[in-house]
Amino acid sequence: MSVAIDLKQTAELLLANNNFAVICHASPDGDTLGGVFALCGALQKLQKNARVILPEAASPRFDYLKSGIIEQGFTEEFVITVDVADPALLGNLEEKYKSTTDLCVDHHVSNTGYAKNLLLDSEAAAACEVVFELIKELEKLTGKSIISPDIAACLYTGISTDTGCFRFSNTTAKTHRITADLMDYGFDSAGLNYLLFDMRTPDRIELERQALESVEFFSGGRCAVITLTKEMLDAADDEDINAISALPRQIDGVEAGVTFKEKEKGEWKVSIRTKNYIDAQQICSKFGGGGHQRAAGCRIKGDVAECKEILLKEIENYI
Amino acid sequence: MSVAIDLKQTAELLLANNNFAVICHASPDGDTLGGVFALCGALQKLQKNARVILPEAASPRFDYLKSGIIEQGFTEEFVITVDVADPALLGNLEEKYKSTTDLCVDHHVSNTGYAKNLLLDSEAAAACEVVFELIKELEKLTGKSIISPDIAACLYTGISTDTGCFRFSNTTAKTHRITADLMDYGFDSAGLNYLLFDMRTPDRIELERQALESVEFFSGGRCAVITLTKEMLDAADDEDINAISALPRQIDGVEAGVTFKEKEKGEWKVSIRTKNYIDAQQICSKFGGGGHQRAAGCRIKGDVAECKEILLKEIENYI
Repeated sequence: MSVAIDLKQTAELLLANNNFAVICHASPDGDTLGGVFALCGALQKLQKNARVILPEAASPRFDYLKSGIIEQGFTEEFVITVDVADPALLGNLEEKYKSTTDLCVDHHVSNTGYAKNLLLDSEAAAACEVVFELIKELEKLTGKSIISPDIAACLYTGISTDTGCFRFSNTTAKTHRITADLMDYGFDSAGLNYLLFDMRTPDRIELERQALESVEFFSGGRCAVITLTKEMLDAADDEDINAISALPRQIDGVEAGVTFKEKEKGEWKVSIRTKNYIDAQQICSKFGGGGHQRAAGCRIKGDVAECKEILLKEIENYI
Repeated sequence: MSVAIDLKQTAELLLANNNFAVICHASPDGDTLGGVFALCGALQKLQKNARVILPEAASPRFDYLKSGIIEQGFTEEFVITVDVADPALLGNLEEKYKSTTDLCVDHHVSNTGYAKNLLLDSEAAAACEVVFELIKELEKLTGKSIISPDIAACLYTGISTDTGCFRFSNTTAKTHRITADLMDYGFDSAGLNYLLFDMRTPDRIELERQALESVEFFSGGRCAVITLTKEMLDAADDEDINAISALPRQIDGVEAGVTFKEKEKGEWKVSIRTKNYIDAQQICSKFGGGGHQRAAGCRIKGDVAECKEILLKEIENYI
């Protein structure tokens, strides 16, 4: 199990070490990416050697996060993961780092404690809130100013993406205070917001159109289902697909929003998002899946009409 | 012309008067509504008589804003407008109040100065930022705590809707700081965000589907047009129509996003939103319309294909 350490202990640990590998989780999102690039940038500003390692390529829309980072040649001595609650989330890097991670910086209450040291704030909306506080602590201990507009943009990316641009229930007063402090550094927040939340490629428009065309209602409008076939998914970016999976639950009156995504011909990845009272995890666990109370997933094989019938019968029991 | 007054002078003016009418603009949006209900609630908390007057009914999704307000019988003695830059925006109340408004609280640099006194902060993202500071000043002068969770929810509504939930370029560090202070009062911000930004009625889903189906690209993808017929619009809510008008500009590569809305058979209300360099106001002014550099509107009569051709020829000159 990890040793739980606080901000000051974590900052001291970083100052006492060098040659850092800073690692994000697979299927990297804005929070894990913003966190690793911000922390890597901060360590480099302190004249340390540091590099970011990605288990999987990130969406090109996040390319700007790298802009303050310098490539350095060195042998890794200290391994940090950011926003990685479980070593299984390291994907193809799991074997290499599952028992050699020196520090994990995270905000998931479910963190498995695989790292030697753990800086965890489960009240934080995003791992980037914790990284912000850690860098502030480094500034306090060293008397140096570390946060640049580039680093502020990385941290803003994590916070804004993990809160759905300040919409989700994880957003707190502290989230807004940290964001205000970040905006004081003067990066182009409106430009980032366009890139992260508003920009729609013509492919995304087409995917949305197809998704909306596929909406079906069940259980008197309390369950909505969208169906995305393999052809539709192959043409789309992961971030776009995630955004669209949020759609059925957004419909007024819908308690359970379901997205059927065809991974292979005849194999469906199902995501269930619920609104007020239905336990999505319980439903998905009946099909060998898992997740959280309000967002869970599973896989079902077979003809789409049959798959829907089986799943909808299960959902009907909870509605 | 108005006398420009500061927060302290405005607070003193309110404390020295009674029997307030607090008026919002026609086609009321979240900012004007949040502002009038917050200010009315604050005045009532100070044992003043106050009522809200709406030139036009608000969307039912804003019903919750009224929840702290008590109905009081009295004769108006002091008229306040909030977020009303020009008396023409008072709609059917223009004649009655255009020269009898005692105080206007606003954030539009274009304010015409029609009110006797003007509290204006053109740096504020929303009129509700100014109302927040005004109520804080009232708290300071009276030593009373005024802001309740209901009032905080009203102010949050104005700030979040005028900034597109903190996405638009008018959002500042101060916007986030004020929002953090409001969240400390403890209202259900995630519930409001769902209502204001995520909730989609089945009618909205249908309108979006139709809008996406109607997307046409011109000028090599730099201009996108959506067309909403009278039948589509009659079935839809104003807030939904506004949200959808934002869509064509969101498309990657699009510089000018155009929405054609059929007001009457053969009469089109056109909204143009531009991204980086095209002056939407200049284009609309050629058709007798107006607005801002990046968002403007006009009306064109005729067959839709002809109307599009005329407008697109004009836009082509700017692309």
